Amino acid sequence: MSNLKILSGNHSHIGWDNSLKPVLTVVPGEEVVIEALEASGGQITADSGVEAVEKLDFSKVNPITGPVYVEGAEPGDALVVDLLGFEGSGWGWTAIIPGFGLLAEEFDRPALQIAKYDEKVVEFAPGIELPTRPFPGTIGVALAEPGTHSVVNPRETGGNMDTRNLGPGSRLYLPVQVEGALFSIGDTHAAQGDGEVCGTAVETGMKVHVKFDLIKKANLPRPQLEYEVVEPGEVGKYYTTTGIGPDLLEAAKNAVRDMVDYLVREYKLDAEFAYMLCSVAVDLKISEIVDVPHYLVSAHLPKSIFK
Amino acid sequence: MSNLKILSGNHSHIGWDNSLKPVLTVVPGEEVVIEALEASGGQITADSGVEAVEKLDFSKVNPITGPVYVEGAEPGDALVVDLLGFEGSGWGWTAIIPGFGLLAEEFDRPALQIAKYDEKVVEFAPGIELPTRPFPGTIGVALAEPGTHSVVNPRETGGNMDTRNLGPGSRLYLPVQVEGALFSIGDTHAAQGDGEVCGTAVETGMKVHVKFDLIKKANLPRPQLEYEVVEPGEVGKYYTTTGIGPDLLEAAKNAVRDMVDYLVREYKLDAEFAYMLCSVAVDLKISEIVDVPHYLVSAHLPKSIFK
Repeated sequence: MSNLKILSGNHSHIGWDNSLKPVLTVVPGEEVVIEALEASGGQITADSGVEAVEKLDFSKVNPITGPVYVEGAEPGDALVVDLLGFEGSGWGWTAIIPGFGLLAEEFDRPALQIAKYDEKVVEFAPGIELPTRPFPGTIGVALAEPGTHSVVNPRETGGNMDTRNLGPGSRLYLPVQVEGALFSIGDTHAAQGDGEVCGTAVETGMKVHVKFDLIKKANLPRPQLEYEVVEPGEVGKYYTTTGIGPDLLEAAKNAVRDMVDYLVREYKLDAEFAYMLCSVAVDLKISEIVDVPHYLVSAHLPKSIFK
Repeated sequence: MSNLKILSGNHSHIGWDNSLKPVLTVVPGEEVVIEALEASGGQITADSGVEAVEKLDFSKVNPITGPVYVEGAEPGDALVVDLLGFEGSGWGWTAIIPGFGLLAEEFDRPALQIAKYDEKVVEFAPGIELPTRPFPGTIGVALAEPGTHSVVNPRETGGNMDTRNLGPGSRLYLPVQVEGALFSIGDTHAAQGDGEVCGTAVETGMKVHVKFDLIKKANLPRPQLEYEVVEPGEVGKYYTTTGIGPDLLEAAKNAVRDMVDYLVREYKLDAEFAYMLCSVAVDLKISEIVDVPHYLVSAHLPKSIFK
């Protein structure tokens, strides 16, 4: 393992652009350690206060490290990315960024929470501990379409997927649209709930150990992934709220609103803190998507996070 | 336990209507066994072929047993329903019903799968086994609004919630809108994935052991529930597809389409069978709901179902 290539976070860029020059070339089967930057690009530090969120320069947000050129990758292939391991920086941040997040209308003031974590536990706040579940929020390949494309939203080529199942031991398949694939990664998270409802997870920098491979002519329509649940971490008590109605987005908002209210009422949390806690610990599931004209989205809180 | 009241499935009705006469009265704290009917109301049996789906009379679909009058329940209260246990009939059905289901446009031909199950395992088909996870698809209370309201969709008073976490040991909180609450239950399922994408689960009749209680003046906006995961049943390998785009419903459809394609390609399943299998075994999660303008819905297949 001593001959592993290491790609520094100095080689980062904002947005997807297939004209960017590769900063590293790998062959299929090769392993690399890539330094993924946290989503503020250094604007928020372990010592920051909420004013750092107020001053956030969005043009510098969500830097991704790369692009990595994969030899032999051609449009129509699937790039296989094995996420072998993560080495975290030990601290992360969660924020309410005005104008961003599922309940942006209600939560219009900035807030910031700094967490500490090790390999097992994220101490989100005193007495609130989440299992450490590292993954890259943003992971993808360049688009065929020329120009610079926003890094904010995910696409058929991956990108800001914020899919928490991309943890250690998982495998991601990405549809290749350009020669060499042009892979980049960043925005690593130490913990996140399904949905990432306030817009941020436990945002942190990490060194990510990845291995690349190719499946020729896979013609994958969208990203697919494989993962293994190795620990019985889902055991325990849950509290669930529901949103019900003809619009999935509004149903999700109501489920989160009700969960925030529950956390405020039962655990005497501040509403803004509760909203951020939902983002890092509460999972959104589509319980029912066929009983038209109403769908049911549920929000699931593992009560075991309260120590 | 020998003095438990038993409510037979003969006392069933179609739709929610607060003018229906209660068939049983209980006091808070009381336990009851209620016979919940399967969703076809006897039109599909363990010996049925696909023609039973073709002939389905929708006016008889989704009978619910009740209403149960809970003494002391008033509008604004929460009805607490503890789901203490389930006794199943041992067989269930899953169908594609033309015009119904998430991918109704693509899957327009009827199909039927009969499954057997015991307390631990649902044999969906030879070589495909799901953990038995019983719950009531439909559980709710009457609406304040007069008239008969469709039982098909869930509402703020519960109803056809199809929320698979309502298993043994769970507790449901329902907003009471009328005096006595007027509780009914039916549409029991032996297994279902989050979403119930083809429109049916493993549909089966069950005797449900419930206990009622009240929280006065809870002013609950929508149903909420508590459950405990007692077994490490989520351990194992998963395959996940993603749908990505500006509309959550379309994203969910794409995730399911890609999962059907995956099951057809990797496991050589018939597409209609694969779609039904998604409905009973694949979970829809909202992985990302903030990276506008694109959301990401993921479909999760536990590979352990293939023996």
